[in-house]
Amino acid sequence: MRFKILQKDGLARTGIIETQRGIIHTPAFMPVGTNGTVKAMTPEEVRQIGYEIILSNTYHLYLRPGHETIKMIGGIHKFINWHCPILTDSGGFQIYSLASLRKITLEGVEFRSHIDGSLHFINPEKAIDIQLALGSDIMMVLDECIPYPADEEYVEKSIKLTTEWAKRCKEHFEKQDTYQALFGIIQGGVFSDLRIRALEELLKIDFHGYAIGGLSVGEPKTDMYKIVKDISPLMPEDKPHYLMGVGDLIDVLHAVEHGIDMFDCVIPTRNARNGTLFTSQGRISIKRSEFKEDLSPLDPDCDCYTCKNYSRAFLRHLYTCREILSMRLNTIHNLYFYCRFFEKMRQAIAERRFQEFKKEWLPVLEKNFYQESNDFHHSLENY
Amino acid sequence: MRFKILQKDGLARTGIIETQRGIIHTPAFMPVGTNGTVKAMTPEEVRQIGYEIILSNTYHLYLRPGHETIKMIGGIHKFINWHCPILTDSGGFQIYSLASLRKITLEGVEFRSHIDGSLHFINPEKAIDIQLALGSDIMMVLDECIPYPADEEYVEKSIKLTTEWAKRCKEHFEKQDTYQALFGIIQGGVFSDLRIRALEELLKIDFHGYAIGGLSVGEPKTDMYKIVKDISPLMPEDKPHYLMGVGDLIDVLHAVEHGIDMFDCVIPTRNARNGTLFTSQGRISIKRSEFKEDLSPLDPDCDCYTCKNYSRAFLRHLYTCREILSMRLNTIHNLYFYCRFFEKMRQAIAERRFQEFKKEWLPVLEKNFYQESNDFHHSLENY
Repeated sequence: MRFKILQKDGLARTGIIETQRGIIHTPAFMPVGTNGTVKAMTPEEVRQIGYEIILSNTYHLYLRPGHETIKMIGGIHKFINWHCPILTDSGGFQIYSLASLRKITLEGVEFRSHIDGSLHFINPEKAIDIQLALGSDIMMVLDECIPYPADEEYVEKSIKLTTEWAKRCKEHFEKQDTYQALFGIIQGGVFSDLRIRALEELLKIDFHGYAIGGLSVGEPKTDMYKIVKDISPLMPEDKPHYLMGVGDLIDVLHAVEHGIDMFDCVIPTRNARNGTLFTSQGRISIKRSEFKEDLSPLDPDCDCYTCKNYSRAFLRHLYTCREILSMRLNTIHNLYFYCRFFEKMRQAIAERRFQEFKKEWLPVLEKNFYQESNDFHHSLENY
Repeated sequence: MRFKILQKDGLARTGIIETQRGIIHTPAFMPVGTNGTVKAMTPEEVRQIGYEIILSNTYHLYLRPGHETIKMIGGIHKFINWHCPILTDSGGFQIYSLASLRKITLEGVEFRSHIDGSLHFINPEKAIDIQLALGSDIMMVLDECIPYPADEEYVEKSIKLTTEWAKRCKEHFEKQDTYQALFGIIQGGVFSDLRIRALEELLKIDFHGYAIGGLSVGEPKTDMYKIVKDISPLMPEDKPHYLMGVGDLIDVLHAVEHGIDMFDCVIPTRNARNGTLFTSQGRISIKRSEFKEDLSPLDPDCDCYTCKNYSRAFLRHLYTCREILSMRLNTIHNLYFYCRFFEKMRQAIAERRFQEFKKEWLPVLEKNFYQESNDFHHSLENY
């Protein structure tokens, strides 16, 4: 894996990650394919929209169908029919958020599957082995994900563990002959000084890229923004900066401003399935009755398959009936919207007008489509 | 609407139904798009597989989003983005099978919505008005669907009602200026003599086509086959013969043999979502553990998108994880299988080898893919 910065605008930057399976333009958004499928989409559809990389969850694939099965079949790309880059997380976050009966020791973590309650043990070496078996293009180290809130003393102890695990991951990784890249993860809760110390330790170990983990877990946005602002500029300039699990586009704007290159998040896909759609005119909740006879496309400024072929009235009908096609058409639109947003953002950085771009988009992203009509009704009440 | 018979082989026949929105080759299978969408599919995908007509349910569209809404929007075709022929049923069967608190009088039927319990009244004239508003290409008369079993006395009374309603449907239909066609429905339970009498009454009224309704509602297959055998040859040769709600391919073979031209059924789509897939080697239940590491396509003889791109192992994984993509890929395959089956069947009739075709396919359709290995284990027990 190689990373090249192309243009800079302040701390914001565009770049290219070169992998064996293709290049990724950064800042990049990675749709989440938990079980090896971006929910409701075929791999071709994800590719056609313009995505160059997806994320898949090691924890889920380890449990089902099992990494050995995927290895036997010829690796994750062949298994799921996606032949572009894939980043796999380490499973740490899912063990923390989904599994039960976690027992964390210096050696590793014991947990019960959220599917069948079976008992499992994963340590840093095994986390790497699983990802080697999957054959993803970018692997993540095993880390301890800290709940929010957590006091400074606990966090300090935890990052020692995470640092130790990162070291073991790297040592185990170096024994392999693989094209795969390995990223380190900076933990440290909402404490910038601890995060800085964690980063310093990771730098000694040396990774292909660095991620900020453990954010967007319930802390105030101001804390998240502060950590990104404090940490991202200290991450090695010539390595990709990945902000894990963050994908609200307002957060993305703040993070890119401080030099973040990679994002993953279920927001566009999950919101789509729940009927919340992003448009150039603000967020739309497609179930609202005002769309019942609305013949216009979801977003008149959008060229996606959904907007080119269907009316808001039909999308509302499909959503009301809980039809599978509702989830499909909504997901296509939201992923298309995200992809174009990232494209335009890269363009803005390249043209050194990122601040303009941010100012232009913040009000759109903060707006609900129907806010205006609500305001209208409110103003009526004054008469 | 015009109907032309092309070739005959015994009572089996191929033909063409010409409508304003395109031709339909018969014998034809109509995928079911209950809410205006063939579940899990886009209209383009249904068309690309080769379907020339779909069925949509008047009852569902009447309740959601409402026929007036669809009319306002420009009709069902525009609403759902499917520009080929659509057949709508009359709602009678769904009122019988889904709605509650039915009160049937000579005037019409009162029922409560299965969605919100709201009270509705539909009579023959309204059933036609709703279908006129939807703008389907083939409409069905309102009929009373009889539960199985029902005694002869009850059935006799019921077909008098159905005949009366058919008359009123036709009278109301004749006042309209429409391109739409109207089919009559022969009821009569499992009593051939009553069915024959019902047909005679319908012939006096005169319809564009004739359907056998009220079968596949729990009666033994032998009864269904007998009714089709007794009634289909008495239906007007120069009009389409439609066997409503039947779509098991074994039943299709028996029905086509006796001159049936049209079928609709949820079997291919519903079975797909439940993981039961039709192949040239028999039925496959994709969840079976023997497919866990099976790299071969679902059906090596199939050219569908699913078989061309994915392994049984991946399909099993998607099904196990209850992924939306599982329902999509399975539905694509089953609809493709059905479409090719009907194509080959038409070809066989054209070449006057329908009996061979039937003999060749019956064992395939009766077979479970894994039957062989089961037999193998059984035979082992004898040692």
